[in-house]
Amino acid sequence: MARRPGRRNRDSNKEDEIKAPVAPAGAMGGRYKPLLESEVERILDAALTVLERTGIEVTESPCRQTFANAGCKVDPAINRVYIPRSLVEKAMKTMANEVLLAGRTPEHDLHLGSARVYMGTGGQAVKLLDLKGRMRETITSDNYHIGRLVDKLDNIHFYMRPVVCRDLENEDIDVNQFYTCLAATNKHVMANSYLPEKVKDLRMMANMIAGGAEAFEKRPIISFTACWTVSPLRYAMETVEILDEAIEHNIPVVISSAPQAGATSPAALAGTLVQLFAEQLSGIVYVNLIKPGFPLIMGCVPAQADLRTGSFTGGSGEFSLLNAACAQIAQHLRIPIYNSSGISDSKVPDAQAGAEKSLTGLAAALAGSNYIHHSAGFLESLLTVAYEQYVIDNDINGAIMRMVRGIEVTDETLSIDVIHDVCTGPNHFLGHAQTLQLMNSEYLYPKLMDRSSRDDWEASGEHDLREMAIEQAKDLLINHWPKIFSDELDNDLRKHFNILLPKIEMQPEGFWERFIAP
Amino acid sequence: MARRPGRRNRDSNKEDEIKAPVAPAGAMGGRYKPLLESEVERILDAALTVLERTGIEVTESPCRQTFANAGCKVDPAINRVYIPRSLVEKAMKTMANEVLLAGRTPEHDLHLGSARVYMGTGGQAVKLLDLKGRMRETITSDNYHIGRLVDKLDNIHFYMRPVVCRDLENEDIDVNQFYTCLAATNKHVMANSYLPEKVKDLRMMANMIAGGAEAFEKRPIISFTACWTVSPLRYAMETVEILDEAIEHNIPVVISSAPQAGATSPAALAGTLVQLFAEQLSGIVYVNLIKPGFPLIMGCVPAQADLRTGSFTGGSGEFSLLNAACAQIAQHLRIPIYNSSGISDSKVPDAQAGAEKSLTGLAAALAGSNYIHHSAGFLESLLTVAYEQYVIDNDINGAIMRMVRGIEVTDETLSIDVIHDVCTGPNHFLGHAQTLQLMNSEYLYPKLMDRSSRDDWEASGEHDLREMAIEQAKDLLINHWPKIFSDELDNDLRKHFNILLPKIEMQPEGFWERFIAP
Repeated sequence: MARRPGRRNRDSNKEDEIKAPVAPAGAMGGRYKPLLESEVERILDAALTVLERTGIEVTESPCRQTFANAGCKVDPAINRVYIPRSLVEKAMKTMANEVLLAGRTPEHDLHLGSARVYMGTGGQAVKLLDLKGRMRETITSDNYHIGRLVDKLDNIHFYMRPVVCRDLENEDIDVNQFYTCLAATNKHVMANSYLPEKVKDLRMMANMIAGGAEAFEKRPIISFTACWTVSPLRYAMETVEILDEAIEHNIPVVISSAPQAGATSPAALAGTLVQLFAEQLSGIVYVNLIKPGFPLIMGCVPAQADLRTGSFTGGSGEFSLLNAACAQIAQHLRIPIYNSSGISDSKVPDAQAGAEKSLTGLAAALAGSNYIHHSAGFLESLLTVAYEQYVIDNDINGAIMRMVRGIEVTDETLSIDVIHDVCTGPNHFLGHAQTLQLMNSEYLYPKLMDRSSRDDWEASGEHDLREMAIEQAKDLLINHWPKIFSDELDNDLRKHFNILLPKIEMQPEGFWERFIAP
Repeated sequence: MARRPGRRNRDSNKEDEIKAPVAPAGAMGGRYKPLLESEVERILDAALTVLERTGIEVTESPCRQTFANAGCKVDPAINRVYIPRSLVEKAMKTMANEVLLAGRTPEHDLHLGSARVYMGTGGQAVKLLDLKGRMRETITSDNYHIGRLVDKLDNIHFYMRPVVCRDLENEDIDVNQFYTCLAATNKHVMANSYLPEKVKDLRMMANMIAGGAEAFEKRPIISFTACWTVSPLRYAMETVEILDEAIEHNIPVVISSAPQAGATSPAALAGTLVQLFAEQLSGIVYVNLIKPGFPLIMGCVPAQADLRTGSFTGGSGEFSLLNAACAQIAQHLRIPIYNSSGISDSKVPDAQAGAEKSLTGLAAALAGSNYIHHSAGFLESLLTVAYEQYVIDNDINGAIMRMVRGIEVTDETLSIDVIHDVCTGPNHFLGHAQTLQLMNSEYLYPKLMDRSSRDDWEASGEHDLREMAIEQAKDLLINHWPKIFSDELDNDLRKHFNILLPKIEMQPEGFWERFIAP
């Protein structure tokens, strides 16, 4: 039976046992197109007009000099740089159309580009809801524990560092947030860097883990996100420095801009797209001026303000439309895209969280977004994460990825003979050979979502999804301690860097369990 | 600003005050196409092959005679009727491409056809979860009370009778289920009929309410659903009799077939579509042989069996794919379609219910399904309804309909000048004239979903969505008593028919409140 390409089954070691997963990571989306092709072109044309006429705000810097050297008009009095269309067109020719973000093992590789879909975590929360429902500030080790959880959740395809290390000084954060994530899972790790001078350290750490500089460049196991603009159309110069360092050290990078419709971009959704793509196109030009073909990912993170209060909101239909539209435009441009889903304005994992995550996730995925971050764990807009929410979102993402895979239409699946057999013979579909053959390849069985009868559900304690998820998260956090680094590698890393996460084996019995749910 | 056509604002009486709603009923979907056009054609071609080769099972009846008279080969020994392609092609030419299901007032009209989307209730539950979380069997008056609730929920566009009247004998059900629904809301009412001889009574009742026979035929305020097949490919002869009566009395009708992939149709999703369209095409042929151009709605209600247990399941990715694919195929055929979303296997309005309803609803709506039933109120597959779930689903459907409306791309919405103003002047987007102009037309504010800060949320009692919905449902049920029938009409109806719902004004103080949440 013909299948779209997907990830190989990770539980299988032998080549001949490999089975196609039911809801494969990297399945091809793009069957949902919120815009007409002519509308995509109008939006991009307007973005080019904005770049030429309104320009971007860039203060005196090597960055501005780069634009000036390439022929951009600069008005130093108002710090604006005007980018001609020709320069954007040139960048479109040199930019990377595909970017590999590698896992430590190949089954976790992300082949970003076209309409291939991957869903994963995002950052950064400042609060954590523990397994007993209590709030606390986030700390460095949360990135490790959440990573262990994510390591076991198949429908979370990459690990973007989820929380702010509120217990650390800036000096220590960069190295420690990457270490805690990389120590927890073989999935690809993305985070930011706070200090430009730390980027070389991070590259060194990545080299050590990847097996050398060449191995890293072939299979980059870490990547950066750099929120290098402040909408509307202003470059954040301290982040541009970090972006420059990432390019210098050949670490794949997302340039992310996050306009809020109505607050930092137009209230008209189309206008927000115009501004966002003006910002993004300027970044594509910039990076490709420095290193043509650099592994760059467009970071479209549109959101909205609730115009009654001005506050950020991320679970709405408008939000979903904006993110899906970005994915469609990225495919038109043939550049990999990073965007958002899974943001909920709810404070707890309730029906609202279930709805908002599903609506935003399905729209982005069907539209073919490549790297959908924030799609696990978040609550309270982007302020809080909860362990059980990761477990819930794993099931939601599974159903979404099953939908992205779609319906295979082949002579066999059309089932003309199967229908004839059952209708004219003594056969039933339930026991038919086709049914037995397809029951574990055509259908995804949720890990958590309950399909039992009311009687059985009552007999097992009448637990709602959140209660079930808390139990599963607890079980995983107590029992899943993946050995990602060899002792030798770990000792080496701890020798070179100021790693603050204690060694697991040094903890007294019960320490971690108490830590997770004191 | 250019807008797709939508429903007029129902709160406005004066022509010059009419504003386009933010999430209009009847917005044009179809931007999600799960199948390639060539795949749609292969599925339909296979369905035609099945009709010719495998045929449908029809016992000796006027129905079978109709097929025989039209030239179908009949095998009386095995009761099979074989339908040639030419007959299907002929029906495709005579069938109605658009069907009006009228509200009692025009703002509730459903213009079924093309990819216009309407979402509403479905049936039939046998259990009700009351506002205190207790289960009980459903009774006739539930159809009235739920109808009053639905009457106030803008994103539920039609009222399909939701529950089984378990307190009535068959003799009394038909008239009473239509009466209780029609007395509760001006929205279009759909239900079934249990007894063929009652259809003429229902038509008479509809005439009386619509203002005469001619008025009804012009604006049919009721319609039927007839589940006239038992999958695979067998006609349910007792329901065919009811279908015949509906056609005789010119009541618009849905022919619904509900195969369960893996149990009553192939486990291959494509095969389930083939069988379902074979069933549907046979019905289109049949109805158009009797009355060419009859107001017929294709009723594609695919579901699936959980193949681990064989039990019905309705909240999955596979379910969503099947329903969305049907909508796409219906548009290809140019025939109005009725299908499903909003089914959840959860027993309570939790995160699972929120997720399953959103995934199934968004897929069907983006695919452009015309009449999406079951999209409010249901839990426990299709066994239970809960008042608060209607209120929750109203918010979910609102977000979905906002997404169906999409992004308007015009010279104005592209906002090139607005962006220039803000970037080069002292202006901000939040106070900009465009923002003020669009804040109530571009953005849908949920009635219930919470966007407050955690502090505010805690201060207001830390209610999750279900708790909030229970309060809103209770408030509506206590306070909203729409006067749909004039006293004269109501007396007239009660004179002609054995109406069992007591008159509201005859109830002692507090009766209804106690009834809803005893």
